[in-house]
Amino acid sequence: MRYKVACDLDYEVNEGCAPFVFNIEAQRRSGQKVLEESLTLSPDLETERFVTPESGNRYFRVLANRGDLSVRYEAVVELAPEALDPATVREMPAARLPLQVMPHLLPSRYVESDLLQTFAGKEFGHLPQGYGRVVAICNWIHDHLDYTAGSSDEHTSARDTLLQRQGVCRDFSHLAIGFCRALGIPARFVSAYAWRLSPPDFHAVMEAWLEGPEGGAWFLFDPTRKAAPDGLVRIGVGRDAAEVAFCSPHGQVKCGKPEVRIEALDRDEEEQLTVQAVTMAAA
Amino acid sequence: MRYKVACDLDYEVNEGCAPFVFNIEAQRRSGQKVLEESLTLSPDLETERFVTPESGNRYFRVLANRGDLSVRYEAVVELAPEALDPATVREMPAARLPLQVMPHLLPSRYVESDLLQTFAGKEFGHLPQGYGRVVAICNWIHDHLDYTAGSSDEHTSARDTLLQRQGVCRDFSHLAIGFCRALGIPARFVSAYAWRLSPPDFHAVMEAWLEGPEGGAWFLFDPTRKAAPDGLVRIGVGRDAAEVAFCSPHGQVKCGKPEVRIEALDRDEEEQLTVQAVTMAAA
Amino acid sequence: MRYKVACDLDYEVNEGCAPFVFNIEAQRRSGQKVLEESLTLSPDLETERFVTPESGNRYFRVLANRGDLSVRYEAVVELAPEALDPATVREMPAARLPLQVMPHLLPSRYVESDLLQTFAGKEFGHLPQGYGRVVAICNWIHDHLDYTAGSSDEHTSARDTLLQRQGVCRDFSHLAIGFCRALGIPARFVSAYAWRLSPPDFHAVMEAWLEGPEGGAWFLFDPTRKAAPDGLVRIGVGRDAAEVAFCSPHGQVKCGKPEVRIEALDRDEEEQLTVQAVTMAAA
Amino acid sequence: MRYKVACDLDYEVNEGCAPFVFNIEAQRRSGQKVLEESLTLSPDLETERFVTPESGNRYFRVLANRGDLSVRYEAVVELAPEALDPATVREMPAARLPLQVMPHLLPSRYVESDLLQTFAGKEFGHLPQGYGRVVAICNWIHDHLDYTAGSSDEHTSARDTLLQRQGVCRDFSHLAIGFCRALGIPARFVSAYAWRLSPPDFHAVMEAWLEGPEGGAWFLFDPTRKAAPDGLVRIGVGRDAAEVAFCSPHGQVKCGKPEVRIEALDRDEEEQLTVQAVTMAAA
Repeated sequence: MRYKVACDLDYEVNEGCAPFVFNIEAQRRSGQKVLEESLTLSPDLETERFVTPESGNRYFRVLANRGDLSVRYEAVVELAPEALDPATVREMPAARLPLQVMPHLLPSRYVESDLLQTFAGKEFGHLPQGYGRVVAICNWIHDHLDYTAGSSDEHTSARDTLLQRQGVCRDFSHLAIGFCRALGIPARFVSAYAWRLSPPDFHAVMEAWLEGPEGGAWFLFDPTRKAAPDGLVRIGVGRDAAEVAFCSPHGQVKCGKPEVRIEALDRDEEEQLTVQAVTMAAA
Repeated sequence: MRYKVACDLDYEVNEGCAPFVFNIEAQRRSGQKVLEESLTLSPDLETERFVTPESGNRYFRVLANRGDLSVRYEAVVELAPEALDPATVREMPAARLPLQVMPHLLPSRYVESDLLQTFAGKEFGHLPQGYGRVVAICNWIHDHLDYTAGSSDEHTSARDTLLQRQGVCRDFSHLAIGFCRALGIPARFVSAYAWRLSPPDFHAVMEAWLEGPEGGAWFLFDPTRKAAPDGLVRIGVGRDAAEVAFCSPHGQVKCGKPEVRIEALDRDEEEQLTVQAVTMAAA
Repeated sequence: MRYKVACDLDYEVNEGCAPFVFNIEAQRRSGQKVLEESLTLSPDLETERFVTPESGNRYFRVLANRGDLSVRYEAVVELAPEALDPATVREMPAARLPLQVMPHLLPSRYVESDLLQTFAGKEFGHLPQGYGRVVAICNWIHDHLDYTAGSSDEHTSARDTLLQRQGVCRDFSHLAIGFCRALGIPARFVSAYAWRLSPPDFHAVMEAWLEGPEGGAWFLFDPTRKAAPDGLVRIGVGRDAAEVAFCSPHGQVKCGKPEVRIEALDRDEEEQLTVQAVTMAAA
Repeated sequence: MRYKVACDLDYEVNEGCAPFVFNIEAQRRSGQKVLEESLTLSPDLETERFVTPESGNRYFRVLANRGDLSVRYEAVVELAPEALDPATVREMPAARLPLQVMPHLLPSRYVESDLLQTFAGKEFGHLPQGYGRVVAICNWIHDHLDYTAGSSDEHTSARDTLLQRQGVCRDFSHLAIGFCRALGIPARFVSAYAWRLSPPDFHAVMEAWLEGPEGGAWFLFDPTRKAAPDGLVRIGVGRDAAEVAFCSPHGQVKCGKPEVRIEALDRDEEEQLTVQAVTMAAA
């Protein structure tokens, strides 16, 4: 399945020179192939690039002068979601977890998994281990939390979300990650372009490290159920939202609202319209 | 200057098989040369090793069966502390920070630098930038906090420490790291064997990324002033204490109190005794 | 039903003169009659007394000199628990709540009911209003929290308890009070001598303001289910634990462990022994 | 000195009948004499009144039907501020504090004084006791915090304010109260009409219980320094802001922005205009 993704970002720089770090480009990873892409900066600035070795995040930095900056990214990405029999996917015991995966058991700024131990143990500790347990965590979050735009801010963490029982995609994912880590399942945060997400925006989901028939791998989950599971184009992965901000400006900068688009190229127009209509009706 | 470091760790495993991850071995890095070392496990278990590429932390895992486990590490390490003229060490602007260093500007579990922005700005925002500003941060912490054993626990974060104004080395370092990050200075947590620390134990200090005459580098600071600055043998570096635990056991395990030793090999015995006496008197 | 209650408290004063405020005497209130009582201080100090008009709490202050202080209180109290048909007890709408009861809708130090609004609404908002809803709150707490001695301290609040899902009687009551207030039900904290509590100690329960056939009244609930509901001799009521500490010492004081006793005078010895045995077995 | 105070409050009730509790009327207390007053409700609803015995707060409740509700209060109040020689005002030791004043030593929802013990001890513990120490606390708050409209919300407590180092009058007062209580000085929250406050609004200040030549009394402090100290007409006093909300609506209600006015009747017009001009310039 091929998707065309795009984002338009606009900024106003109010000092001599402000550095920006962006993380908006689709990852190149197994199951996700970037067929074409273009990055357009206006003014036409030089980019400095850095791909995180352990995660594949594609960061770039630009130094913008006083005035306007606009950034447009467009790509066509092919997703090959694996057919998956959940019954065959188990949790991997700590004895066999790859050592480089283990940091994803640690608490992080927005995921205080150390504080969630008892809660997670009481809600999910007795469930059969495996893919189904992470599904149960996501179901619990979907059923017990309200998705409420504007109910959280950049300081909100999993602990707050569990108490307030409301949040947005970022908060839902932080809490799911927290429950997983508290139970000994490595988990991480994923930013993505998400097909059928309405209104369109950058989306946040999460991955848990589990063990399928072919070995350990990161499996994707969306506790918000707001996007099509097979239509997620991953941008950045990290311990939590802090690590995968789509834009980190430094200095006196005014940010416009980002515009994000995603389109399925292999579905006929009618199917797309239907989906769109359904989604709008449901929202 | 050469130091002989050692630690003895004892555990009692109360289930079939418990995995342990250790991070107790001295780093091999510029300015710190491991001349000899030995690791003794009893029973004699196989170790699986992992060196974090970005930090040089040397983790190893063992799978221990029910019963006792003891781990002894000994090493002779040569430190070549650089002569440093603080006046020549500046802060590096975000425009030039290496992209792989920038994650150390992010908040982490025990360092909520996002919550410390106003505090840091008001206390340190007006100070001249550079090495001296990090010194000022450490001095403030030393002067405003009590070093009180037992006043914090494994959930205590920089936010708590600032409020409670007491803590141990780990808390002092978290707060110093938080102030640095809030001011735009990348900073990270360092665990170490520390000469003259009394009573001997694993120590926690911090590093800030600054720019000397030869370029950007991690500079070491000890806001507790409890150890000799030129006698710190680094073990692990990370975003905060979560990442560099000397031991992470998984399963039903009882931990004994670690025994840590460090000895300066190039100072005559009398000097050492004097130091010991002075330290004991001061404690 | 008559109960004999007693407590023995011991202190060591390490300065010239330390004031103590105690709140250990049984309340005199409707349904609870103090038949006899004695207070013995050693040394034999003068007491200054204050009964809070709105709550009936009986505070007394003594000024103790350097050395030992021991306080013994003994009383025989008759309880006349009302027969109650829960189906007839409703919640009282804000329009009719007595104005002097309304402060018990406010958040307090250990009961951040303002932060529990969404949580309480989602768990209990849909339930039929009345006595049964407060029972449902207590059941939820009993079922979702572990009663774990030592799992909380004097800073633990309802918010923490909800997250940690464990606590002691004080924490269970704070959380129940918080859920009630969040739903518009006035609620307050009660300290008590509690028959069948094992091991014997001061107990903490809570009261909710509801409306029975004879009008508004404070109804008692014990979310821990650890004591006999008809064997609670009330000592102090207040917004939360802060207000009804059994002892508030000021100055350099060392506190011994309090000894608390309660005995039912109208049950034959065998019944008592059975109860004791059952309780011990269950603990 | 006589002041004319007034407030206009507007609400829109969106259900059958909503109860409101107001606390907007000037207290009648020593040093503050209400010479005239009028309360106008539209529609003309019945009020139910309650004066808190221990504080003198004048609450009234109205039951408003669907539609608009407007409340206007006007009063002429005479203030007789006492001449005060700060040097003669001491702190009162716990041994002599009136027992009914002691609850104001307890932590409350927005004043976690239990968490501020070490902080207060380190900053203010060494200062000479007395009126001057409370002044020192207020000065510290004035000097270390930014007064920033919109920087806090209804959940912000003293702990948060100390960390964020910004807030509004309510936050400044909570923190001052917290430091006082942590040092053993009873302290409480005061809402007031405040002359020269700009822009005009309900103001929040605090009182500490100290001991002047004529005995114990509540002394007023304004850590914001935003109003004229001799022009404060007190409305409500309580443990913290929770207790003295000027309006507590229950039900589906939309609130307009309150309009508050205060005018000094004994100063000539020119003086008033000058003051106004000065205040505007300083803001």
